[in-house]
Amino acid sequence: MRLSSCFMPTLKENPAEAQITSHRLMLRAGLIRQTSAGIYIWLPLGLRVLRKIEQIVREEQDRAGAQEILMPTIQPAELWQESGRYDAYGKEMLRITDRHDREMLYGPTNEEMVTDLFRNNVKTYKDLPKMLYHIQWKFRDEIRPRFGIMRGREFLMKDNYSFDIDTDAARITYNKMYVAYLRTFARLGMVAIPVRADAGAIGGDLSHEFQILAETGESTLHYDKAIEDFNLASLAGDIDPETVEKLQSLYAMEEEKHDPDNCPVPAADLRTAKGVEVGHIFFFGTKYSEAMNAKVAGPDGNLVPVEMGSYGIGVSRLVGALIEANHDDNGIIWPEAVAPYKVGLINLRTKDDECTAACDDIYRQLGDAGVEVLYDDRDMGAGGKFADMDLAGMPWQLIIGPRGLKNGVVEVKNRATGEREELSLEDALKKVS
Amino acid sequence: MRLSSCFMPTLKENPAEAQITSHRLMLRAGLIRQTSAGIYIWLPLGLRVLRKIEQIVREEQDRAGAQEILMPTIQPAELWQESGRYDAYGKEMLRITDRHDREMLYGPTNEEMVTDLFRNNVKTYKDLPKMLYHIQWKFRDEIRPRFGIMRGREFLMKDNYSFDIDTDAARITYNKMYVAYLRTFARLGMVAIPVRADAGAIGGDLSHEFQILAETGESTLHYDKAIEDFNLASLAGDIDPETVEKLQSLYAMEEEKHDPDNCPVPAADLRTAKGVEVGHIFFFGTKYSEAMNAKVAGPDGNLVPVEMGSYGIGVSRLVGALIEANHDDNGIIWPEAVAPYKVGLINLRTKDDECTAACDDIYRQLGDAGVEVLYDDRDMGAGGKFADMDLAGMPWQLIIGPRGLKNGVVEVKNRATGEREELSLEDALKKVS
Repeated sequence: MRLSSCFMPTLKENPAEAQITSHRLMLRAGLIRQTSAGIYIWLPLGLRVLRKIEQIVREEQDRAGAQEILMPTIQPAELWQESGRYDAYGKEMLRITDRHDREMLYGPTNEEMVTDLFRNNVKTYKDLPKMLYHIQWKFRDEIRPRFGIMRGREFLMKDNYSFDIDTDAARITYNKMYVAYLRTFARLGMVAIPVRADAGAIGGDLSHEFQILAETGESTLHYDKAIEDFNLASLAGDIDPETVEKLQSLYAMEEEKHDPDNCPVPAADLRTAKGVEVGHIFFFGTKYSEAMNAKVAGPDGNLVPVEMGSYGIGVSRLVGALIEANHDDNGIIWPEAVAPYKVGLINLRTKDDECTAACDDIYRQLGDAGVEVLYDDRDMGAGGKFADMDLAGMPWQLIIGPRGLKNGVVEVKNRATGEREELSLEDALKKVS
Repeated sequence: MRLSSCFMPTLKENPAEAQITSHRLMLRAGLIRQTSAGIYIWLPLGLRVLRKIEQIVREEQDRAGAQEILMPTIQPAELWQESGRYDAYGKEMLRITDRHDREMLYGPTNEEMVTDLFRNNVKTYKDLPKMLYHIQWKFRDEIRPRFGIMRGREFLMKDNYSFDIDTDAARITYNKMYVAYLRTFARLGMVAIPVRADAGAIGGDLSHEFQILAETGESTLHYDKAIEDFNLASLAGDIDPETVEKLQSLYAMEEEKHDPDNCPVPAADLRTAKGVEVGHIFFFGTKYSEAMNAKVAGPDGNLVPVEMGSYGIGVSRLVGALIEANHDDNGIIWPEAVAPYKVGLINLRTKDDECTAACDDIYRQLGDAGVEVLYDDRDMGAGGKFADMDLAGMPWQLIIGPRGLKNGVVEVKNRATGEREELSLEDALKKVS
């Protein structure tokens, strides 16, 4: 994409309304714009990141055997009346009355709808286990939306729902999703710490929150350092059930529940770090299947309510969380897996025909090789181009000027390390491809 | 995907609520389920088709130079009050009051929001032309939602918005989108007839509706047969501006405006066919930019309101439209470009170990070759498998049984033509790959 025609409205100044790093940088780099409190437009660069994260989340759900569906954003109130959550949910639920005076709502989550789908279409234990997920916009009418898309009102969530015949099977499914989450966050280049959690409004008795580590994180975690090793292990292959149980028994606690005097982990093995919550998984048994009569015939022919779980990842929230974990004073430092473009190509002298011809050619070559490039071909000074490219955070920068070209070299900069190298064009292209 | 674990709840009987073919087949083949009047869940097979159509639409928008953004579903009323459409829009607009008593709405379209985005971020003619599009769920509170997703309330639309410095430039942009639409529908395997249209609620004075031909279409079209040739020509390369103007001058009229006695086309060149509307493009000049003060500095430094157009494709509607155009008594016949899977692999005898081993192997081979396969590995009779596979409409069927295997052959069926061939496994795999 040529920056001269790309819609990437960057800001030189820090916007006053942004209190945290990710919000500030997303506005400044032209990734998002607010339209109402807690509601945002995703601009081209931001949307590319969002879609890449979404795709990684999707691939790991599919790999774990979940099937993607898409439930609508608008739900009928009846389903929530059946489960008993319609009144309980309070003002965070965006309630709507349609033209025929039917009570509707903008879904904050989908336990009821997916339970209804299940009970209407699945009748026997032979069709279990089943995991159905979707990646859809949700709405929670936060009283004080803040921190940009980290605590917005309209947000993109992956929510998966599992159906099993008994609690043993359900536990296997739960652990499968637990591992899928570790893999997902590891592919995003993050260390994720699963923390035993309360089930809260969802209900149930087994639950983990996944927090990714970021210096600017909102909560403080204390955990056994052995947990970090499992993040990488999750990428290497499937983790067997025993290992998962072992991992789940390792110590990980939020600050408010951590008692230093009674911590089972020796000080040398204890890590303390800040985290940002990006996922939450729940096993809640028959809470919804009982209330909504979602039963299947078991092996003996008797009808039994299915054992259910739900598994959420804040997809849009992850964009902010990744920035919280990957930035410096100059801007964002995207992990390669989710960068809007892998390479930022900077033409230092657009008015120099030779330099521009060389840049155009490099742009074409990289495109042909399938490398995603943001090409700064704008007619402006080098300083502004460097600043914008650092701000937008592409992992690699290719900096092309007349002087280097005369000597047969171009500059390659690694955004994360700041390392710069002068390389022959050929070597430079190899390096970033 | 193995059908034994795929969530594809087919129905043997025609559902009483479905009045048209596509609605009936989408319910029967397990592509969608209704959750409220005019609101649907997309099940795995339906979602795959929806995403493939969406991707083709996206690629052709990108190719034409439009940039993808994503605007939220929930909009503030203020923007619509500024344009004057808040009161004018009537009951089709789903109006919402949030917890702070702010008036909001579920966007039925996005002219106001994108104009607001533009005016806040673009200040000079040098940044024009600009086309910004998104593919997002919309809501229109139809008084009588019907025909399944063809006239639903929550629906997926691609809407693109263009900004130009003057009407000449805007006309060029309009024609670019016009060609992009022909290409899009041609890639979907459809003949699209652009019909000059009234601008209606959007406003403005230049507009075309795109109708794809389908025997069960809702409107009758009379048109110069030369138009059909342009559909294919659009795939072969760019259509030059003169050719576009010529194409736009060709006769195409809906029944109610067609006067057989005063038709400029000789009878031999006139075609009559049924059509389904799937796209609509508008040039409306400064209607919104004047009302909302979206101005840029022109070459002379004076501020001028931008010339705008909008360009919609009903992405979810297209799923239904494609079925209206591609089906027979047995079910759907998907065009290859959008089929949920390219191949339906049928194991005729799951209890025969050799047959099942052969099928598993073929499934693996096709997967390795990147061919998308729906593998019917269910333990049930051949009749039901044939019926389901015809219903679901995969372009190719590979039918594997013990008898054929003994003779070293498998059966390949083309869903569209019904042709069946016995081929060696090797040739069969070549054929469907």
